[in-house]
Amino acid sequence: MRHKDFYINQLSNLPEGKETTIAGWVEDTRDLGKIKFLKIKDCTDSVQVIWKTEESPEEIGRLVEKINQNDVVKVKGTIRKSKVAKKGFELVAKEIEVLNKSKHPLPLEIRGKINASLDVRLDNRPIDLMRPRTAKIFKLFSEVLKITREFFYEKGFVEVVTPRIISTATEGGANLFELNYFDKKAFLAQSPQLYKEQLTMGLERVFEIGTFFRAEPFDTTRHLNEFVSLDIEVAFADYNDVMEILANLIRTISKELDKLDGEYKEVLNEKFLEYKDKEIESYSYKEVVNMVKKEGGKINYGEDISSEHIKLIKDLKDKFFFVTDWPENTKPFYIKVKDDGTTESFDLMFSELEICSGGTREENREKLENRITKMGLNLSSFSEHLKFFSYGMPPHAGWAIGFNRLMMIITGENNIRETTLYPRDKNRLIP
Amino acid sequence: MRHKDFYINQLSNLPEGKETTIAGWVEDTRDLGKIKFLKIKDCTDSVQVIWKTEESPEEIGRLVEKINQNDVVKVKGTIRKSKVAKKGFELVAKEIEVLNKSKHPLPLEIRGKINASLDVRLDNRPIDLMRPRTAKIFKLFSEVLKITREFFYEKGFVEVVTPRIISTATEGGANLFELNYFDKKAFLAQSPQLYKEQLTMGLERVFEIGTFFRAEPFDTTRHLNEFVSLDIEVAFADYNDVMEILANLIRTISKELDKLDGEYKEVLNEKFLEYKDKEIESYSYKEVVNMVKKEGGKINYGEDISSEHIKLIKDLKDKFFFVTDWPENTKPFYIKVKDDGTTESFDLMFSELEICSGGTREENREKLENRITKMGLNLSSFSEHLKFFSYGMPPHAGWAIGFNRLMMIITGENNIRETTLYPRDKNRLIP
Repeated sequence: MRHKDFYINQLSNLPEGKETTIAGWVEDTRDLGKIKFLKIKDCTDSVQVIWKTEESPEEIGRLVEKINQNDVVKVKGTIRKSKVAKKGFELVAKEIEVLNKSKHPLPLEIRGKINASLDVRLDNRPIDLMRPRTAKIFKLFSEVLKITREFFYEKGFVEVVTPRIISTATEGGANLFELNYFDKKAFLAQSPQLYKEQLTMGLERVFEIGTFFRAEPFDTTRHLNEFVSLDIEVAFADYNDVMEILANLIRTISKELDKLDGEYKEVLNEKFLEYKDKEIESYSYKEVVNMVKKEGGKINYGEDISSEHIKLIKDLKDKFFFVTDWPENTKPFYIKVKDDGTTESFDLMFSELEICSGGTREENREKLENRITKMGLNLSSFSEHLKFFSYGMPPHAGWAIGFNRLMMIITGENNIRETTLYPRDKNRLIP
Repeated sequence: MRHKDFYINQLSNLPEGKETTIAGWVEDTRDLGKIKFLKIKDCTDSVQVIWKTEESPEEIGRLVEKINQNDVVKVKGTIRKSKVAKKGFELVAKEIEVLNKSKHPLPLEIRGKINASLDVRLDNRPIDLMRPRTAKIFKLFSEVLKITREFFYEKGFVEVVTPRIISTATEGGANLFELNYFDKKAFLAQSPQLYKEQLTMGLERVFEIGTFFRAEPFDTTRHLNEFVSLDIEVAFADYNDVMEILANLIRTISKELDKLDGEYKEVLNEKFLEYKDKEIESYSYKEVVNMVKKEGGKINYGEDISSEHIKLIKDLKDKFFFVTDWPENTKPFYIKVKDDGTTESFDLMFSELEICSGGTREENREKLENRITKMGLNLSSFSEHLKFFSYGMPPHAGWAIGFNRLMMIITGENNIRETTLYPRDKNRLIP
């Protein structure tokens, strides 16, 4: 690369005396007069650069005096093994170039303890990312994406990309962002639900990881108006099959992160790592309702179970658990209803946080149309979707995980804004 | 899975006499009276199911008579090795269940030759996907996504997700879709450009693969209003560095697809596969202008090079090539300008199709502000982005590939709608 030969974590492999160029940010400077030190960091590690009157050009010494914390620099130097240096070696400065200066003070402190509020950090996310903890969370986000995709690739799933701009509200009721699409009214998709169902006709096993949108004016620590969703849909499967896939995914992520050998230790939730060899418990909706009642909570059969209800049940704290077989009225039209009025459906929870919702879908066009009508939705809005159910739609099941929420559980963070690079809520559209 | 034990391509490993259940679509039926055949396909392969009076229940025979092409069925049977059967074995029917019926005729023919127009196929994409060729194109799309991501993971890049709803037009001039965001005006992002630049401060090497939007009323075979973009950005790199990464990516995709051993043969462009061991040629903008003139084309230095210009140059047909060092006025404000008035920029072309654009970015705040002003853009619209250039912005470079266009080249398709599941253009918002 133009400005560096190596990343800092590659230097330890170089031999004594080897000349090389690195580039990064100044973490610290120490001026002892005839000896001056710079601590330089890049995205991989940090290293000590040393300048001494007798072994480095004099003008570098004068330049080092003007260098400040967080200045962007390029250093050419030679490797010297040293028992005193923390890493076992240091870089003896031969040339230094300042590539970009940094103003002081920064809008937030990036070394040591953080005093800034979440709002200040989000207003300055790129600077916040220079803090090691924030950087680790988003590197971990990338790792979990990687593990997740490899899990589905390995199982023969096809990765798909469905539209974000759509002509009708996919699931009926919800608030969607509206836009003008060449003089037609259009909406931003809240999920790939109907598309992924359709795609099971040709591809059978599909997944998508992408950004979706919801226009509700949320004001909580677990909702955003723009979020990453991981969606799957599987032909010839039912809700038990896809719950097994989900439990297997959680186990795989937990195992793989555990293998990373401490690299992400400070941003990993111990409770999540337990699931590398722990089963996920499963309760029916009815059982959970009874558990809530037993703890003195107020709830009637048929009502949604709220976070407040779950908080009452001490046994469910810091645990994953499935809640299955929800009553018909609590689930969207595409979920399959059983003869007893419950549905082939489930939510995956961790403590009181819902992170995934799924189920068997209704593949019979007539039953599906009855459900749509019964829910007071307009049948004609769905005609372009329903027509496919007449031409060989297989039975199918699937689910959707809120990926930013999953990352909350993996990291143990309590606010979804901590696991979203540039969160969007009703007050935040910048940066 | 509830409806099947195995995918059809797993059956060949089963022993003679093994009882198993498969599920899929009826591709063909043949009724010889006392012997009846069903050809069943799933997403992996197809298999012959046989019913004979003396070895299968009689009611199955009657059911088979009522089964039509494309009906969704579940078949329980036993494996019988057979020299006559195409695959070396067949499934002797024990139970058959029709899971869903298919109407006839289908909106488009899915076996054999395709007579339907592109519009009919797009109106019925899920049915079009039951055609083997269409299914292969989108399975290949998924393969290329996988190869691409593994390429970047392996190089230490961090996968990021930047916002789609933004407060200001990221690149100035272009037409953006506008939406109402809780009573504020907002836009749909046309690229992650400014965000990925910012993220080099904390993460150095980032990539994103996601859907972006452009509101121009295109009417061509190579533009869509919603498209998948692959974006990278690298700290301490320049345009030569990121061109090398790009050439390396093309080589890797070509090599990896070549390894897939004929699975995608009929949807792979031979010209693309040549790049597994072929260098990508590079010409400066000035050189290409002279080539155009030599072929009798009309172009002045400083003008954009059009597809019509490139078509004049026979030597560039069916080839990848870089066009580098464009004049300042042809490139966006964030591209670095050299002392001679050209820029550290490049496009990657294949024949006359542009698939990638990139360059070194300007990291100096003052120079960047001068460029913005010079281009007639409003400096205050960019204040939330520009502020980060004062706090340790490294030199950086990057590029963006139109992924659906890349898939056009890989498959040899001439219309971007062939490599997009649900394309969006000014006339198409459904399905």
